Amino acid sequence: MPYFDAASSAPLHPVARQALLAALDEGWADPSRLYREGRRARLLLDAAREAAAEAVGCRPDELVFTPSGTRAVHDGIAGALAGRRRAGRHLIVSAVEHSSVLHAAATHEADGGTVAEVPVDRTGRVAPGAYAAALREAPGGVALACLQSANHEVGTLQPVAEAAEECAAADVPLLVDAAQSLGWGPTEGNWSLLIASAHKWGGPAGVGLLAVRKGVRFRTVQPADERESGRSPGFENLPAIVAAAASLRAVRAEAAAEAERLRGLVERIRARVPELVPDVEVVGDPERRLPHLVTFSCLYVDGEALLHELDRAEFSVSSGSSCTSSTLTPSHVLRAMGVLSEGNVRVSLPRGTADADVDRFLAALPGVVAGVRERLGAPKPAEAAPGPGPGPDPEPEPDLVVDSLGKRCPIPVIELAKVIGEVPVGGVVTVLADDEAARLDIPAWCEMRGQTYEGERPAERGVAYRVRRRA
Amino acid sequence: MPYFDAASSAPLHPVARQALLAALDEGWADPSRLYREGRRARLLLDAAREAAAEAVGCRPDELVFTPSGTRAVHDGIAGALAGRRRAGRHLIVSAVEHSSVLHAAATHEADGGTVAEVPVDRTGRVAPGAYAAALREAPGGVALACLQSANHEVGTLQPVAEAAEECAAADVPLLVDAAQSLGWGPTEGNWSLLIASAHKWGGPAGVGLLAVRKGVRFRTVQPADERESGRSPGFENLPAIVAAAASLRAVRAEAAAEAERLRGLVERIRARVPELVPDVEVVGDPERRLPHLVTFSCLYVDGEALLHELDRAEFSVSSGSSCTSSTLTPSHVLRAMGVLSEGNVRVSLPRGTADADVDRFLAALPGVVAGVRERLGAPKPAEAAPGPGPGPDPEPEPDLVVDSLGKRCPIPVIELAKVIGEVPVGGVVTVLADDEAARLDIPAWCEMRGQTYEGERPAERGVAYRVRRRA
Repeated sequence: MPYFDAASSAPLHPVARQALLAALDEGWADPSRLYREGRRARLLLDAAREAAAEAVGCRPDELVFTPSGTRAVHDGIAGALAGRRRAGRHLIVSAVEHSSVLHAAATHEADGGTVAEVPVDRTGRVAPGAYAAALREAPGGVALACLQSANHEVGTLQPVAEAAEECAAADVPLLVDAAQSLGWGPTEGNWSLLIASAHKWGGPAGVGLLAVRKGVRFRTVQPADERESGRSPGFENLPAIVAAAASLRAVRAEAAAEAERLRGLVERIRARVPELVPDVEVVGDPERRLPHLVTFSCLYVDGEALLHELDRAEFSVSSGSSCTSSTLTPSHVLRAMGVLSEGNVRVSLPRGTADADVDRFLAALPGVVAGVRERLGAPKPAEAAPGPGPGPDPEPEPDLVVDSLGKRCPIPVIELAKVIGEVPVGGVVTVLADDEAARLDIPAWCEMRGQTYEGERPAERGVAYRVRRRA
Repeated sequence: MPYFDAASSAPLHPVARQALLAALDEGWADPSRLYREGRRARLLLDAAREAAAEAVGCRPDELVFTPSGTRAVHDGIAGALAGRRRAGRHLIVSAVEHSSVLHAAATHEADGGTVAEVPVDRTGRVAPGAYAAALREAPGGVALACLQSANHEVGTLQPVAEAAEECAAADVPLLVDAAQSLGWGPTEGNWSLLIASAHKWGGPAGVGLLAVRKGVRFRTVQPADERESGRSPGFENLPAIVAAAASLRAVRAEAAAEAERLRGLVERIRARVPELVPDVEVVGDPERRLPHLVTFSCLYVDGEALLHELDRAEFSVSSGSSCTSSTLTPSHVLRAMGVLSEGNVRVSLPRGTADADVDRFLAALPGVVAGVRERLGAPKPAEAAPGPGPGPDPEPEPDLVVDSLGKRCPIPVIELAKVIGEVPVGGVVTVLADDEAARLDIPAWCEMRGQTYEGERPAERGVAYRVRRRA
């Protein structure tokens, strides 16, 4: 069954498996002990640290292993903020960071700090100069700035080296979340802190990396612990650490060739999906992107139903914000980009994905989308085209109100699409909706359909979205 | 090579290894995903939680998996303190808790909270009524009390059920650190929170347990995260979790028989060591103890040298405070017990330890101890016996001062032992020392040797310890 969700968790690399097995036998003892088994464990730990540091591009004593990427983010941000307490309490993040970064920022805010979100363009990319502007406009001393190396939902690469320069000029450390990219290559630029997660590159679960450059102020907020330079408490998960380092080295050796191959498959998906499926928006930067990840959104489709049908067709993909799939709010990434969130599909190909599996996916997708749309009563491409529909009233209404209260997206957009032809050009359809996703998807629909979005206002219940028919 | 340090980390149980291998294939995907691989991972996670909860004696929805025992302690204590913020900011711990508990307490204190340490007797055991007294004497509202199920350094079982009753009467939750005992059986009594660590029972590294009974106030202080009920952020380390649960079940099935067998071996060590090695103190409760762990201290011996020589003789054991072996301060556990810390050896037998290995250890130990003593110039048992020595001065000095400044234990004690015979009965030897261990070991030596310890006072440099010759 083709698994196309490597960005959530990659299948274990064979080298990781081998290394894990070997280290289960050799590395179960406490590496802080002085007896034979402990010394052997210490040697394995030291070697793993050296290998990981080389791949990251830092000194071994700058890198610690954490229990996960999330813990690396939480501990890294908290430690950098605490270490820079005197410099200030302002934190700068991009609007499209991973939820673990945004949750750490929310904790900082709840604790009395301030947070600014740097916006992105429609491709999900932070503009050059955006970090410099955020630094200039900071309400007080800036403790830390964070920027991902590449977006986890749409694959867009971020201008890390430029942001690092802007931060360095302001003497502010930049923390880079390299979770999605570290398997493909080191992070360019003069970053100060870096985090990553082994199970994203084919290593085992249970291992994150936190690198803190020498000279960067850092104060652990965790209770004291002698392990991992005091920066990550708890007994080292040595077999997994050994497997993580070995597999990072292995995937790096294959990275250039595999990136080229997967890039070709992703290009095929990017080109073919809009041809095969009507009313689709492919999102993310078309050039500056991760090699293995592509995201698109389908109008008039419920993402969860789409995932379910794709799963029935034996394709495992993700939708919306990968870390909030259990909630009903639309992805904060797609929202920050201002693109359609409904019917969102993220395809992230694991290493070794076969061409034939991608072709099977492209063959299956149109039928799956059509099926979901049909069940939702979505307008057919012809119907949805503007122009007076075959309504019962020959005189078009100058204005219409659609009551979609209590209906979950994509229903409000479907109902809007069905009636837009019933008002004359220049007329207005007002959609009443209380599903949060409508805020994103109605303007996105207007953008895709060439209609004019005139904004929202609070209604007696929910929100009223005004759309003026342009053609 | 006999490995006798199971209390630090137990070798991986064969069932853990098998389960880990199986789960690497079946459980690498994200259990919060709805596609096939995710659902399979979720089933494994749910089954592991049920098995672990059954072994702990709680409901599955009361138990979360953490990345380590240490993180379970840190997150558990912080969450319980935060949840009970309105009840008060006082924390009660025993003086012999694991360093992770004491470090969490120190963090609480640094954050403005108060902490009380409940004392223990010479066996390391908390007295009945001690928690009730600490609750009565609390300076303000008590947020939380902590007590280990069994001590990790000396094996003494704690009266958890009684302490839980005392806490319940005061409406204060009790957190039990069951790290050393969970593999042997569930924790008795009406505890509120419980933590454990898989690599202590033969499970893999990378898995801790945190159980929080329904109704116990708990507020996660970590940044928000949807995993593990929001109580332990980060991608679940599923293969290790599966292995942890499977091995817990397996070791429990063998626990009764293996406990009886190891208890016999430990009894052999407890009985034989004082017969084979002069000037040894076996510590810990002789009856109410873990089945596999025994600790003794050897006068006139440097613990690190002893460990090194035992390692050369192919025995892996631990010394002093197992979690601060890299520091030079004596074990806080032995200090709280008021017993000798020098030449401290902890033997903790892993399951399956062969009788013959214990016999080999008993055969090797006397020569190893004698060798270390000889190199340190320790008094021979005959020399150390009281009575005027063959000193050059036939008139015994009424008082003597021994300058051991700058010398590390056991040298101050060795020098004291060498001169005690040079003062008359009723005379005083004053030892000047600046090694922190002297504070513990000089009184302990007096206790073992039947001399009178008269207390300490600050000296111009270091501390002056007064010992009056009694016989």
